[in-house]
Amino acid sequence: MKKNILVIPGDGIGPEVTTWGKAALEKIAEIFGHEFVFDEALMGHAAIEVTGEPLPDETLEKARKSDAILFGAIGHAKYDNDPSLKVRPEQGLLKIRKELGLFANLRPILLFDELLQASSIKPEILKGTDILFFRELTGDVYFGEKTRSEDRNTASDLMIYHRYEVERIAHKAYQAAQQRSKKLCSVDKANVLESSRLWRETVQEIAKQYPDVETEHMFIDNAAMQLIKNPKKFDVVLTANLFGDILTDEASQIAGSMGMLASASVGESTGFFEPIHGSAHDITGKDLANPLASILSAALMLEIGFGLKEEAKLLVDTVDAVLKEGFRTHDIADQTTNRFKVLGTAEMGKLVLK
Amino acid sequence: MKKNILVIPGDGIGPEVTTWGKAALEKIAEIFGHEFVFDEALMGHAAIEVTGEPLPDETLEKARKSDAILFGAIGHAKYDNDPSLKVRPEQGLLKIRKELGLFANLRPILLFDELLQASSIKPEILKGTDILFFRELTGDVYFGEKTRSEDRNTASDLMIYHRYEVERIAHKAYQAAQQRSKKLCSVDKANVLESSRLWRETVQEIAKQYPDVETEHMFIDNAAMQLIKNPKKFDVVLTANLFGDILTDEASQIAGSMGMLASASVGESTGFFEPIHGSAHDITGKDLANPLASILSAALMLEIGFGLKEEAKLLVDTVDAVLKEGFRTHDIADQTTNRFKVLGTAEMGKLVLK
Ligand SMILES: CC(C)[C@H](C(=O)O)[C@@H](O)C(=O)O
Ligand SMILES: CC(C)[C@H](C(=O)O)[C@@H](O)C(=O)O
Repeated sequence: MKKNILVIPGDGIGPEVTTWGKAALEKIAEIFGHEFVFDEALMGHAAIEVTGEPLPDETLEKARKSDAILFGAIGHAKYDNDPSLKVRPEQGLLKIRKELGLFANLRPILLFDELLQASSIKPEILKGTDILFFRELTGDVYFGEKTRSEDRNTASDLMIYHRYEVERIAHKAYQAAQQRSKKLCSVDKANVLESSRLWRETVQEIAKQYPDVETEHMFIDNAAMQLIKNPKKFDVVLTANLFGDILTDEASQIAGSMGMLASASVGESTGFFEPIHGSAHDITGKDLANPLASILSAALMLEIGFGLKEEAKLLVDTVDAVLKEGFRTHDIADQTTNRFKVLGTAEMGKLVLK
Repeated sequence: MKKNILVIPGDGIGPEVTTWGKAALEKIAEIFGHEFVFDEALMGHAAIEVTGEPLPDETLEKARKSDAILFGAIGHAKYDNDPSLKVRPEQGLLKIRKELGLFANLRPILLFDELLQASSIKPEILKGTDILFFRELTGDVYFGEKTRSEDRNTASDLMIYHRYEVERIAHKAYQAAQQRSKKLCSVDKANVLESSRLWRETVQEIAKQYPDVETEHMFIDNAAMQLIKNPKKFDVVLTANLFGDILTDEASQIAGSMGMLASASVGESTGFFEPIHGSAHDITGKDLANPLASILSAALMLEIGFGLKEEAKLLVDTVDAVLKEGFRTHDIADQTTNRFKVLGTAEMGKLVLK
């Protein structure tokens, strides 16, 4: 199989971790005899520094031409501390999601048995948890009109949904639910928000087309609570952009660490694969980042982007094996025991490749 | 001390639990020689059934005349399942918050040592946690304009903040932080939302007036994660209406159960005291609800509403003592051991009074 893959390392720990996601893809190509042609492009703060733009035209062009994109992370403390800056790294990520029509963000909460202890949640609560989030990615308050009054004393963002936006991601989520345990939980705030009432109405309609799937509707506040109280009760979770952002970060604690979670954004054409962790300025360049989320993003690319199930499985199994042997990066090491061999980013990356 | 207290039982388990919150206030009045005069009023589904309105004028009038309000819960499955209904119970709660100017919702995450085991989070992660949330309560996407297109295919809610709204709650939160460990974390989504950028800017300005308090700004997705990963790192948390709704429900898992958490809404005059749990239709009328959150709401009324610290402490200590003796309601009983004496709502209520 021949594929063109665009690597966008981005900001912060992005470059450190995508190095290993890319290396994993190269290794898989070598083992299975595929031809993966790589190109690289700038986005975020890294792009602003060079071109003044968070998403340069060149990056977008390359993205459109590629078969899949491996992305790192975005964001920089400079902008976080100064809310008045007009050009911001995150605009690059939001724009590429919109331009490529990446309306469905899949975030599997994959639980490695070896990491049960790494979570702040009790192992008996976690064991057996297997959640697949479908987060809507190109609508909601992320993309609605933003205003700031002239005196700068009033600011707004429009939370808005169109029925077709809810329908298309609902179909994807229901189809996935049919392949899994046939349970879907849709999360909204329909007791307060009109956009959530449209969301709920639409999901209720779509549900009728999937009578084999059991649907539950839950308010976001309750969902944020239930996810910790009893994560096992969730299977496919379908939700809007903002609620999905919050819930999936929260759910990372189920997997032991944000450093373990990958995501796939799909939609009209090219798929976009990235860790769910952010740029993590505080540990950038210190060889402390966990490269496994990027390697697992590569696995998602193989499976969801290219339909290469066996290749994806090899990567996931390798990560599992490395964990079983007791190797950990800092974020997933249990500080209270000496049972683990704690590795830096590069060592962990190399080990997985071996 | 003479005070007029309005009791609004509301929907679902509201009536069952407020019975005990009210009884606790009566007992305190008896012991300390206060005169609490009670009145009662309708709100939510209970009010719609009788008057057609979720917040009848009579209730609002009584509320304005009272010194404090003890509220139960709101909401009904009928409305949750039918997003198209125009008159909805929650409108009553939102309207009374707005009409009484209850802009600051204080939600202390009070951790009873006895309940460390009741949480799904590991006791060693929880121990020592003590968080006080300040949730903005009369702005945000809750109160911004709502629209639905004529073809019903597009729906929106305006997420909007004015600088003065952020300032007044920020002052309250900083003042509380000065009385506690002098740490404040402000939660927003300033990397995406303009209203959050106004929020962050404003908090940065107010922070200068409280140089003795250490301020941290955190994105909501990260906060939802950190709250589970390391709850001890939080002290005062300041956040917007929607984010506060989500975070505080999530944080209820720190306290072992939603059934243990009370909240105080304050602002221009009359204070409003309520459990953070909802109407819980599934257990309504089954004598399964936990009355402790309502009793602790009464304690907050005594302390924050009336400045009666000693009286409040007696209530909290009594709850603590009852837990120490091994009494539990269903939500906080550990099903795996027989160590606890599991009580119904009424038995638990009576026990605390004794
Ligand atoms: C960086 C930020 C804009 C982004 C988001 O909020 O979508 C991130 O948190 C994510 O979840 O991918
Ligand atoms: C019932 C609902 C409108 C309310 C809210 O969202 O504010 C509740 O969840 C709360 O937290 O008090």
